[in-house]
Amino acid sequence: MDAQEQAPGLVRGEGLTAWRQIADALTAEIAAGRYPPGQQLPAEAALAARFAVNRHTVRRALAALAEGGLVRASQGRGTFVEEAPLAYPIGPRTRFSEIVAGAGREAWGDLVASTTVPAGPEQAAALALAPGAPILELLTVHRADDAPLSTALTWLPLPRFAGFAEAYAERGSITRAFAACGLHDYTRLSTRIRARPADSAEAQRLDIAPGRVVLVVSSVNIDPAGVPIQANRTLFAADRVELVIGG
Amino acid sequence: MDAQEQAPGLVRGEGLTAWRQIADALTAEIAAGRYPPGQQLPAEAALAARFAVNRHTVRRALAALAEGGLVRASQGRGTFVEEAPLAYPIGPRTRFSEIVAGAGREAWGDLVASTTVPAGPEQAAALALAPGAPILELLTVHRADDAPLSTALTWLPLPRFAGFAEAYAERGSITRAFAACGLHDYTRLSTRIRARPADSAEAQRLDIAPGRVVLVVSSVNIDPAGVPIQANRTLFAADRVELVIGG
Repeated sequence: MDAQEQAPGLVRGEGLTAWRQIADALTAEIAAGRYPPGQQLPAEAALAARFAVNRHTVRRALAALAEGGLVRASQGRGTFVEEAPLAYPIGPRTRFSEIVAGAGREAWGDLVASTTVPAGPEQAAALALAPGAPILELLTVHRADDAPLSTALTWLPLPRFAGFAEAYAERGSITRAFAACGLHDYTRLSTRIRARPADSAEAQRLDIAPGRVVLVVSSVNIDPAGVPIQANRTLFAADRVELVIGG
Repeated sequence: MDAQEQAPGLVRGEGLTAWRQIADALTAEIAAGRYPPGQQLPAEAALAARFAVNRHTVRRALAALAEGGLVRASQGRGTFVEEAPLAYPIGPRTRFSEIVAGAGREAWGDLVASTTVPAGPEQAAALALAPGAPILELLTVHRADDAPLSTALTWLPLPRFAGFAEAYAERGSITRAFAACGLHDYTRLSTRIRARPADSAEAQRLDIAPGRVVLVVSSVNIDPAGVPIQANRTLFAADRVELVIGG
């Protein structure tokens, strides 16, 4: 039994606010391995009882941990200790499902929305289409176990990939959706990487605190004949991945 | 003459603070091209006179622009409009000097500090040395024209590169310092990329506002015989570069 459990009451009037003391106690316990990576923290009510504070104070403490990138708050499911960053190789054969499965974690992609849009200048150039040509736009979120690693906007030429959204929704993987559309191989042509703070919609899709950093990875994939088949703008939660080139 | 110059006085008591109104006016003028990328903004005293406010208010407005990544505040030199991000290829032959010169800008590396340290586990593994072996550690800042693009910690094996720090200080380039040490070619073995907010010391070295994002690029270089010669941890101001792989 540790000191916190022997003396759950907080030290009042000592300069540190109650939520800060709770955040410090949980940070120390996570560092000490009491809550290992991936594990769920006790529910707010349980923490409130343990520290003899109200739930608002607990919520403030958990928000501070999330703002520091130490935990992930998943709406309606609870708060989880962040896993070590996943090594994510960027190369000609980058495949999300294989990379995540290779790390012993379960990969799945959720289709959030799909729509037909006219190609903007960026998409038209990447896909070698005329500006304004109809393309399929998907908004997706990609998970390793339950944690969202990335969220992407993906653009595909029409009519070639007319059935892609349904195939993706069913199969949860770009590679498997391509296979369902009759395309059994593709390679990465180019990748560009930037980084910036997430906006609030992006932060919500990634279960990160607003303002945490995202790696913005823009890429183009081609089929075996060299024809561009997919342009992407993928936002990775920067706390959850390390991009690896070469080596 | 634009509206701002015809009516330099700010609208008082309209809900927006004076510094916010000045920040908005300067943002609009930068967007309109009145101050193009790379150009220096008027001095604080001149802006204070133009907007009929004190210098503290101008400083607050300029800090807001820097926090938004729109301008770069260079201590003692003034405030400059940020340039468009530089495309920075990552590959076997990545060379800072060549990349920056290829973009029509002048490259120079400043040596901030050099010291001999025992190799930590990370450096020992990267350089294929025993932990604790003496290595040379350099702290450097790399500029394109005057803007710092990146700052790095670089580790080199000793005694092989005993004269490296002096060679770098004189030549302002890793490639030229290696040449001065008799090594005329090297290649990039591996690169790992993360991103996070800058701490205050990093922000100061990069002329960015504290909390702006840095790309953290860890790399290892080898000589033509395959021997590791250099491990790096380079922080790029994320507003100033786009890393490019392939394509």
